Amino acid sequence: MQKGCRHVNSPVGSPIKVGVIGARGRMGSEAVRAVGDAPDTELVAQINRDDSLSGLVEGGAQVAVELTHPDSVLDNVRFCVENGIHVVVGTSGLGQAELDAVRSWLAERPEVGVIVAPNFAIGAVLSMRFAELAARFFESAEIVELHHPKKADAPSGTAARTAQVVARARADAGLGDAPDATTKELDGARGADVDGVRVHSVRMSGLVAHQEVLFGTEGETLTIRHDSYDRRSFMPGVLLAVREIGSRPGLTVGLDSLLGL
Amino acid sequence: MQKGCRHVNSPVGSPIKVGVIGARGRMGSEAVRAVGDAPDTELVAQINRDDSLSGLVEGGAQVAVELTHPDSVLDNVRFCVENGIHVVVGTSGLGQAELDAVRSWLAERPEVGVIVAPNFAIGAVLSMRFAELAARFFESAEIVELHHPKKADAPSGTAARTAQVVARARADAGLGDAPDATTKELDGARGADVDGVRVHSVRMSGLVAHQEVLFGTEGETLTIRHDSYDRRSFMPGVLLAVREIGSRPGLTVGLDSLLGL
Amino acid sequence: MQKGCRHVNSPVGSPIKVGVIGARGRMGSEAVRAVGDAPDTELVAQINRDDSLSGLVEGGAQVAVELTHPDSVLDNVRFCVENGIHVVVGTSGLGQAELDAVRSWLAERPEVGVIVAPNFAIGAVLSMRFAELAARFFESAEIVELHHPKKADAPSGTAARTAQVVARARADAGLGDAPDATTKELDGARGADVDGVRVHSVRMSGLVAHQEVLFGTEGETLTIRHDSYDRRSFMPGVLLAVREIGSRPGLTVGLDSLLGL
Amino acid sequence: MQKGCRHVNSPVGSPIKVGVIGARGRMGSEAVRAVGDAPDTELVAQINRDDSLSGLVEGGAQVAVELTHPDSVLDNVRFCVENGIHVVVGTSGLGQAELDAVRSWLAERPEVGVIVAPNFAIGAVLSMRFAELAARFFESAEIVELHHPKKADAPSGTAARTAQVVARARADAGLGDAPDATTKELDGARGADVDGVRVHSVRMSGLVAHQEVLFGTEGETLTIRHDSYDRRSFMPGVLLAVREIGSRPGLTVGLDSLLGL
Repeated sequence: MQKGCRHVNSPVGSPIKVGVIGARGRMGSEAVRAVGDAPDTELVAQINRDDSLSGLVEGGAQVAVELTHPDSVLDNVRFCVENGIHVVVGTSGLGQAELDAVRSWLAERPEVGVIVAPNFAIGAVLSMRFAELAARFFESAEIVELHHPKKADAPSGTAARTAQVVARARADAGLGDAPDATTKELDGARGADVDGVRVHSVRMSGLVAHQEVLFGTEGETLTIRHDSYDRRSFMPGVLLAVREIGSRPGLTVGLDSLLGL
Repeated sequence: MQKGCRHVNSPVGSPIKVGVIGARGRMGSEAVRAVGDAPDTELVAQINRDDSLSGLVEGGAQVAVELTHPDSVLDNVRFCVENGIHVVVGTSGLGQAELDAVRSWLAERPEVGVIVAPNFAIGAVLSMRFAELAARFFESAEIVELHHPKKADAPSGTAARTAQVVARARADAGLGDAPDATTKELDGARGADVDGVRVHSVRMSGLVAHQEVLFGTEGETLTIRHDSYDRRSFMPGVLLAVREIGSRPGLTVGLDSLLGL
Repeated sequence: MQKGCRHVNSPVGSPIKVGVIGARGRMGSEAVRAVGDAPDTELVAQINRDDSLSGLVEGGAQVAVELTHPDSVLDNVRFCVENGIHVVVGTSGLGQAELDAVRSWLAERPEVGVIVAPNFAIGAVLSMRFAELAARFFESAEIVELHHPKKADAPSGTAARTAQVVARARADAGLGDAPDATTKELDGARGADVDGVRVHSVRMSGLVAHQEVLFGTEGETLTIRHDSYDRRSFMPGVLLAVREIGSRPGLTVGLDSLLGL
Repeated sequence: MQKGCRHVNSPVGSPIKVGVIGARGRMGSEAVRAVGDAPDTELVAQINRDDSLSGLVEGGAQVAVELTHPDSVLDNVRFCVENGIHVVVGTSGLGQAELDAVRSWLAERPEVGVIVAPNFAIGAVLSMRFAELAARFFESAEIVELHHPKKADAPSGTAARTAQVVARARADAGLGDAPDATTKELDGARGADVDGVRVHSVRMSGLVAHQEVLFGTEGETLTIRHDSYDRRSFMPGVLLAVREIGSRPGLTVGLDSLLGL
């Protein structure tokens, strides 16, 4: 296994051996397809709800892609780390305490890499980074996110994080509140306030997952829009992580560093 | 004067004689320019704050364009009607009681026309009409309006009216509530509720006046967007009203009928 | 069968019996699902490539949904008309000559309805109609359509038709050419010229089918945007046609009249 | 003067002394207003067409803002450099030969700074930089730029430059041609080809200056949109250059380095 770790990116012609945990789930089944289709990855294990994780070891997986559930993700990560299998984690629900646990396991296996990303859509990661870079140049910043109507939370996690990042960049640049002369507001019209950045959530049949970060200053606006039409949009990011993880031992949170941003 | 009324649209080559009330205001000065520039209208009177309205009569105005203030608009309209001068009213603030008063004056002068429009931007009028027509075909409908940060009210009057029109069309078609599974909302994220239609108000430096009406159903969305970059956008609607008023005696509210919608 | 025809919309509680021709195709399989899911329709026949059309008669289909191929559509429609089965045709490829043939068959069976629509997405039909209504009020009109990169034709058929409709409305209103001071153009930058209306075709991974019709006049623009994320977007229009066809004997081209536009 | 140069950014409370060359032009008059309004700049000279440039020296200008015409810009820059006055150049028309000439003059006056920028709208500069950063992550990239109909060139200079930057980033990342199955194209539909990147130019009444850079990959798109509503949008960039030029001797082309991008 360790040998596999060291060689994850290596001989051209020798594909990276990948196991998918949660292989029958909505995301998992896409990952199975993506790993199977890519020329430089090979699907060696599909782990479903009642399957033993030992299938990963038996299949010779160098990298596991974890796409299960907040309840099971941590146990799965632990198994992989202890067995010298790199893990790309797309399941949400890892807070600071959980990440600290992962770090402690990795201390024992310094050659193993774990990449945890809240959003594997490359466009979403770029959007957030560009929003952070742009924030200090504009008096005003707001976010409009638009999702399918089955979504339970408003705003979306990505929008809330983007707002926090923008708010921090504004504060670092010494920007005060955005101008707003509203004196007569119908409750909710001006959206939710996330660290001073207004966020608006549209819920609509037909939509998938979309976000606009809007910036404005005198005479001009800049809009960064990300449209995710399909959960397949996560797969390029997942594959990127699968390819890079061999050269990134330890815990990596977010795709930013993999994207060179 | 009555003769003028009857001939407002008439001899080609004989421009319509127009007076502007509130000629030095922001909208008024644009109207002065627009009336002066158009080949088929002639500016014959400019009435400012302390000027007597008799300048309209002396100038031989067939049509007055009223662009002053909610406090003065009603007196100005009365003067015009009593003097047989058609009036195009762009000033806001005429409620039902005021419109009834106008109707009573017009009863005495049935040849005179008064056109009152809350929004003379043709694109805004079309947007609202299209939104009304589309509403019954979509499960979901929401409005995002975006304005400069000096605006006092949120949502904008146009957005609120559009939401009401959409809500009524939905009700007439027997549509129930739009689907929305939101269970965890940061206060305000889902916008203001106008008769069941969610309205979101963005306030941003650089913007002027913009509105998107979004409709969604299975697998598709329809968006009607109006961008007003400049108060000159009201002038084509004002000129249309000036040209049409001669053939529309009595009170007309809204540009819809003039647009043949 | 004739009895069925007369009663297509009738007794509440008695669903409309529908057969799908081309049931295993991409569109056909969605139609099978949609007809099966809707409370007021019943799937009584699925006809695949090598199946006899007699399955429609045996199943008691009142309405057939034709979703096959330009090569086979005409024979299928003929069979249905001759057997007193209404047909909703979503297959493209019926030109004037083919429509004339359909009319001649219908002359023998005046109680039967055939609805042929190039695009069953209700948002697309509304877009085209609104574009037609708006065209005469704006100096400028252009179309930007954006599709997945596997599309063979540029512009899309819908964009070309929309441009023609806009061009005709402009001509009817006496509008001349849109203003355009371009003197130095890199070949193709200003798009394709469809009856004087410029059409721009974007081809891009990730996209599905999208179209913006843009109108501009002094100080304002109006944009009508349709986004189709999924071929399921055709199903509400297909079901609408299935429900309405019983009261629309003869040939109907386009969904406009069914939408009351 | 040299003393002034060294102190351009210095004592708080002592505003930077600025002269505007081309003060009555469309851009120049905005610069006069912006320099006059900003708390840390002082307008000390307004040079018009027939005025001598010596007014800059007499007024004690530390920085000149050059907003004239391609025919005169080079002489004006030379005068400033020779007189130890920093110059912020917003006039277009400086090609490689002209920039080389500026460099040779600066060699004699190494303490002087010249900043030449084709576009001072900060949003435009950010758009181009973000497009460059994003390009390598997406299979497809196209540009749609939209301008008022009085524009002579299509595509715009900014769009052409953005396309070149995107094309180079794609090439550096080893990306081949974007996927495009178009086999049947109406001439011009697919836009202009700038180094393999398709660029579409919309010309429309009501618009000012707008640009969208679209990127797409499996299941997602990223759009970077810049809207310039007003030539005032150049002023924040001009003021930024005025404030920074004292610490940037020599020739600086583009605002990127000033923005820390």
